[in-house]
Amino acid sequence: MSDEIETSQEVFEHLQHLLRTNEIAAFREEFLDHHIYDQSQFYLDFSDDERLELYNVLSPDELSEIFDSIDFDEVNIEPYLREISPEYLSAIFDQMSSDNAADILMTVNKRERRAIFTLMSPEKVTEIRNLMHYDEETAGSLMTTEFVAVVANQTVKSAMTVIKSIAEDAETIYYVYVLDTQKQLLGVISLRSLLISHDDVLISDLVNEHIIKVDVSEPQERVAKYFRDYDLLALPVVSHDNIMLGIVTVDDIIDVIDDEAQSDYSGLAGVNTDNLNQNPVQAAGKRLPWLIALLFLGMGTASLIDHFDSLVSQASVLAIFISLITGTAGNAGTQSLAVSIRRISVNDEENKSFISLILREIATGLVTGAVTGVTIFAVVSIWKGNIMLGLAVGVAMFCAITVANLAGSLIPVGMDRLGFDPAVASGPFISTMSDLTSVFIYFSIAGMFIRFFT
Amino acid sequence: MSDEIETSQEVFEHLQHLLRTNEIAAFREEFLDHHIYDQSQFYLDFSDDERLELYNVLSPDELSEIFDSIDFDEVNIEPYLREISPEYLSAIFDQMSSDNAADILMTVNKRERRAIFTLMSPEKVTEIRNLMHYDEETAGSLMTTEFVAVVANQTVKSAMTVIKSIAEDAETIYYVYVLDTQKQLLGVISLRSLLISHDDVLISDLVNEHIIKVDVSEPQERVAKYFRDYDLLALPVVSHDNIMLGIVTVDDIIDVIDDEAQSDYSGLAGVNTDNLNQNPVQAAGKRLPWLIALLFLGMGTASLIDHFDSLVSQASVLAIFISLITGTAGNAGTQSLAVSIRRISVNDEENKSFISLILREIATGLVTGAVTGVTIFAVVSIWKGNIMLGLAVGVAMFCAITVANLAGSLIPVGMDRLGFDPAVASGPFISTMSDLTSVFIYFSIAGMFIRFFT
Repeated sequence: MSDEIETSQEVFEHLQHLLRTNEIAAFREEFLDHHIYDQSQFYLDFSDDERLELYNVLSPDELSEIFDSIDFDEVNIEPYLREISPEYLSAIFDQMSSDNAADILMTVNKRERRAIFTLMSPEKVTEIRNLMHYDEETAGSLMTTEFVAVVANQTVKSAMTVIKSIAEDAETIYYVYVLDTQKQLLGVISLRSLLISHDDVLISDLVNEHIIKVDVSEPQERVAKYFRDYDLLALPVVSHDNIMLGIVTVDDIIDVIDDEAQSDYSGLAGVNTDNLNQNPVQAAGKRLPWLIALLFLGMGTASLIDHFDSLVSQASVLAIFISLITGTAGNAGTQSLAVSIRRISVNDEENKSFISLILREIATGLVTGAVTGVTIFAVVSIWKGNIMLGLAVGVAMFCAITVANLAGSLIPVGMDRLGFDPAVASGPFISTMSDLTSVFIYFSIAGMFIRFFT
Repeated sequence: MSDEIETSQEVFEHLQHLLRTNEIAAFREEFLDHHIYDQSQFYLDFSDDERLELYNVLSPDELSEIFDSIDFDEVNIEPYLREISPEYLSAIFDQMSSDNAADILMTVNKRERRAIFTLMSPEKVTEIRNLMHYDEETAGSLMTTEFVAVVANQTVKSAMTVIKSIAEDAETIYYVYVLDTQKQLLGVISLRSLLISHDDVLISDLVNEHIIKVDVSEPQERVAKYFRDYDLLALPVVSHDNIMLGIVTVDDIIDVIDDEAQSDYSGLAGVNTDNLNQNPVQAAGKRLPWLIALLFLGMGTASLIDHFDSLVSQASVLAIFISLITGTAGNAGTQSLAVSIRRISVNDEENKSFISLILREIATGLVTGAVTGVTIFAVVSIWKGNIMLGLAVGVAMFCAITVANLAGSLIPVGMDRLGFDPAVASGPFISTMSDLTSVFIYFSIAGMFIRFFT
């Protein structure tokens, strides 16, 4: 690949040149010869003027494939839609996969959408309208309605004829779904097993009825888990009464897995890592809201320390261990947060009850806190030659870690149960929260011990 | 699916019952009727005795499919291998996909491996031996050698005959690769386009020569990126002289994407989130090494504060802002760490030079630090009615954030350039490191300002 990558800028400039000099045939030959993903990258990189020229040179059908392959989660579609004539645009949407068309049309305002719909084929509009009803991040919102279906009392030969006739339009032809006359899903046959069967075998003799399928309202994480576990290329989506509605294909699931991982990761760090090519002011603008919010939460910790000012005046040695205790408890809280968020996102039937989760995290916190507490007790006692000071710091560390562990684990679980996205409880948030409780614990315990070491 | 999930425990118990009461025919019928993934879950859940019985009831071929579907990254294979007879075991490996067989046999010690090899078919052993040579986490280590190849001067009809004859063994038949007589890769045809073409068309007229392919040594992240961008089901792997060696299939790539995301995430939190079902002592054992290591790093910060003890004795108000400054700088460092690690892992041709990366992060740190510094200056000045104290805290905050930002960004980039895994520089590590620099900055600046506010 490396050759191609090194020269891709030259290829692009050559394409620009052909467009500007109006060498239509040469442009079409070279442009359409590229993989559709590369075509879409060129399209996005062209200038406004070049794109206007492009619409003269390519058919709506050719543009529809480009639109199908652009990830509009990451690209703002608006400026592109506005420069295309309504007739051309509706022809594009007519040719696109209905799931992708629905995704784009969701972002367009109602009036414009209606204008586009009036120029499109009524069947396609109905399909797209139906898809737009499904909740975001469910199987319904991911599926496409272009799948291959046959009936059970067909022969392999007649099924193959059906498949060949719709092969060009279907999103995948490698799974063939068997439906009854009410469109209920009976089973699946792989194209592979059709190919190696005799022409006159009946579909009903080949069909695999132990089919993995999902309800249209199933959340996308669950759908992704089926793909991972069962190594699927496509998964049928059915209504509550088993009517086949569409299929989710593996390429869409790769994007879901990627997005989910990205959002867990971004959440943990308290920063959105979606767009990495921003200038410093944009980047700072993205990070500052969290930082400033946490700064004010941190002010709570500061006023708490202020409240204990008399203790620090009595024994300035106490100031030494503030950051050690808040830092270590914050680290422990972040660990348990990360484990807890993962546990929610792989959320499956093995998931234990709320109570058993709490008990297990309390136990983990107690063990972690005990080991860390004893360690710091030993270190401080020897370093400062003061066992009572060591004891105060050790006990405070033990309590602070146990509480931070519990908080790191319970906050996301609680948010999840209440219907919020647990990934919002980021690592920095948990550390800053735990600063507050750790300081309170530390000074309360130090207050009890202070007469032994001043 | 929910019905099936609720009853899966009953199904399992019924299977156990059939095994124990030796109802072989009934067991085989029910067991083999399940999806191969479910079969593998049952297999792993059976007791030792039940598995020994299973080897009598199932053929090595049937077991080989179960072995193919188990993710041995997450399951320790050893105890299973040890309970199976050498003859049966070598028959399993003979039937498995060579990539999965190679993955498992890599983990077996040399002597045992040789014993298994002597009982296997020599061709399969050669295939597996070849696969074992490729570096981990490269295209070579992911690929399988079971692909479908035809030559260019064949007709569609004769190609379809080839495909049907090897359909059962090939990992995927949906892409057909066109090779010359030296086994060099010329292009690809989808099964879809073969199906809709006439029998007597020549392969050379259909072949798509703009093929996406990877070199056998290409890292797996790059391979995953091709799958994501080009929506592939399989990707051919070639040697440096374009000899076709194998294919990587999309199901293996989903596991790669998952593992990569998991390891970035685990790194950021300083805890391995691979195994979520551990008892509290195991869980604590996994978290403690990091915590204790960071505790000792934190002791550095504590001794630094100790060093500045005279400042705290003079103005105990200084203690109030220690955790605010270390916490906020730690949060900023974690954000820039997360962005930096993401940037490395999507590492591609757009990647800027080292110098421009540094300059951009310095600029982002300056902007973030300035806004946060001004905010805290205002808050502290008003709260404590002391502008000079506010100034000291504000300037310290500005410097601490700039440094933390730079460190969070440079440490992983530097580690990557030196050949270490940047994900080891976890969030907790960066916050603890930045505690040290923040405290130093804070007290140094406070020392300069102290005569104005005591």
